[in-house]
Amino acid sequence: MQETPAIIMIPADEMQELFARILLKYGFTQLRALGCASIFTDSSLDGIYTHGVNRFPRFIHYVKQGYVIADAIPVLENKFGGIEQWNGNLGPGISNAIHATQIVTKLAEQHGIGCVALRNTNHWMRGGTYGWQAAKAGFVFIGWTNTIANMPAWGAKDAKLGNNPLVMALPYKDEAIVLDMAMSQYSYGALELSAMRNETLPVFGGFDTEGNLTKDPSAILASNAPVPIGYWKGAGLSLLLDLLATILSGGLSTHELSKKEVEYSLSQVFIAIDISKLGNHSLIVKAVEEILKDYHQSLPLDETKKIVYPGERILQTRKNNLDKGIPVLKKVWDEINSL
Amino acid sequence: MQETPAIIMIPADEMQELFARILLKYGFTQLRALGCASIFTDSSLDGIYTHGVNRFPRFIHYVKQGYVIADAIPVLENKFGGIEQWNGNLGPGISNAIHATQIVTKLAEQHGIGCVALRNTNHWMRGGTYGWQAAKAGFVFIGWTNTIANMPAWGAKDAKLGNNPLVMALPYKDEAIVLDMAMSQYSYGALELSAMRNETLPVFGGFDTEGNLTKDPSAILASNAPVPIGYWKGAGLSLLLDLLATILSGGLSTHELSKKEVEYSLSQVFIAIDISKLGNHSLIVKAVEEILKDYHQSLPLDETKKIVYPGERILQTRKNNLDKGIPVLKKVWDEINSL
Repeated sequence: MQETPAIIMIPADEMQELFARILLKYGFTQLRALGCASIFTDSSLDGIYTHGVNRFPRFIHYVKQGYVIADAIPVLENKFGGIEQWNGNLGPGISNAIHATQIVTKLAEQHGIGCVALRNTNHWMRGGTYGWQAAKAGFVFIGWTNTIANMPAWGAKDAKLGNNPLVMALPYKDEAIVLDMAMSQYSYGALELSAMRNETLPVFGGFDTEGNLTKDPSAILASNAPVPIGYWKGAGLSLLLDLLATILSGGLSTHELSKKEVEYSLSQVFIAIDISKLGNHSLIVKAVEEILKDYHQSLPLDETKKIVYPGERILQTRKNNLDKGIPVLKKVWDEINSL
Repeated sequence: MQETPAIIMIPADEMQELFARILLKYGFTQLRALGCASIFTDSSLDGIYTHGVNRFPRFIHYVKQGYVIADAIPVLENKFGGIEQWNGNLGPGISNAIHATQIVTKLAEQHGIGCVALRNTNHWMRGGTYGWQAAKAGFVFIGWTNTIANMPAWGAKDAKLGNNPLVMALPYKDEAIVLDMAMSQYSYGALELSAMRNETLPVFGGFDTEGNLTKDPSAILASNAPVPIGYWKGAGLSLLLDLLATILSGGLSTHELSKKEVEYSLSQVFIAIDISKLGNHSLIVKAVEEILKDYHQSLPLDETKKIVYPGERILQTRKNNLDKGIPVLKKVWDEINSL
């Protein structure tokens, strides 16, 4: 029997203040501490706890260990037209990715489309952050990161592929439509949560140690073999995302990252398109509205359930968490307070 | 009981000559007839029969019906820096997509990265064609097309999403690594073939009319509900690809296409990056080699099976079909001869 873990509700501003105070203590500049604290808090507000509040202690641990260098500055290494290659110098993944997103949207303003490839950076936490940032500024965004190997190729036992999250986003009214998805059917965070609750997954989440597909999250955690989305298809997409991140940035591949003791020095790609350069903006808004209207008219298999688009539920979660505070596991909050 | 259908072996040059002769008869210029005939033949040589020889009769039918306009010329409608928007004027999907790929690689040469968005075009047949074309010329390629609705949203009964094939490619030595994947777990072509052979699918391919996941291809064809890769994830990716193709090109969305009597007037996106502008080329080749070497060292679940990367088997199929001829269903070849 599992006891329900204690949860406390933390107001967003209190969370952000604590994060900033801790980051200052570990060598972040004022500006960077506020920036990172705000992103960790926003992800938690949006319900992405795995890459928000729950991830914060590990992030600080990586800073302490020197995998993440608090005051490192990204440096431009190569430039041609709308493309730039940057070295993240092992700075905080959030600061580097925010910087890359700002640069790529400027490139898109100048060239219509831009691409920033970033090597030697760190985990960007919630990939959707950069999709929201670019889309709310009026840009289409496509970006991805590689990761350490955590998923087998199709037909293989051992993990050779990263789950390499892919983000696609576009502006929509004052908000955005943001897809943020890893190439594995479930994240390790989701598998751990289901295992803790003794749940069976709704669909196959990976392989057991015998190589059979299973819905048992504990069996998947034991084998370290989550299944790629669409089996051979997601495996192929994951490989291509790693190949492109590696060659575009000149950085480390999943294969090379996986030789390290922990996951650091990642390669990432940021592409932005300035849609203000494409004809009549009101026609674009109307086209998106019509697609979503039709999509929402889908006939649900279960009539009590609404068909939602990627990111649609987030605005409601954000509102709830702003109103009622962010639900945090007490033991996580205690750990953060001790940092 | 099913009889094995008669198959004949057609030499590539004979196939290409026949295709070109038929296309000339239906109003294609000499140059365009040769171009389209060569693409239909190459796809067949590479083993992509569904979008090669098997598709040719329907293509000619669409030309006869006026959905595909044999001599239409694509027109540039808008341009800013590395982005161009083109109107395909309902010309042949292959000619328009070849043109778009040529333009986007020129844009990438000038700006490092380019994007061509093409509206009012037609089925591009095998999407991988344009990935191979761009990659063999030295470019990274990302492209996709929308389609009519042929797949339900996650949690829905009725098809509101297209399977919107996505192509990613990069140069590799004298060849390329090309991922060409639709957002459905199986293509309709694959489902029809399995149904004809009374086979069970290796993994869930869609829903039966009761909304249950099934491996029975006939049940999926009856419900018109193939499953997206990775369930909610592929459904989300499909929606984003349609949204982006629609707003970038100013063309029709899956929703609007699906009101038409057949699938025509599609929207497509072509992105190219000129990797010759990115540092030392030999380092890029070495990075790709090392990723593939590690990938190939995956431990197979079934020791008789090789772990392959997207497109890897194609070179062998091409060689076999060049040596021994292209296997064609006799009834398909007879139909083509009667066009």
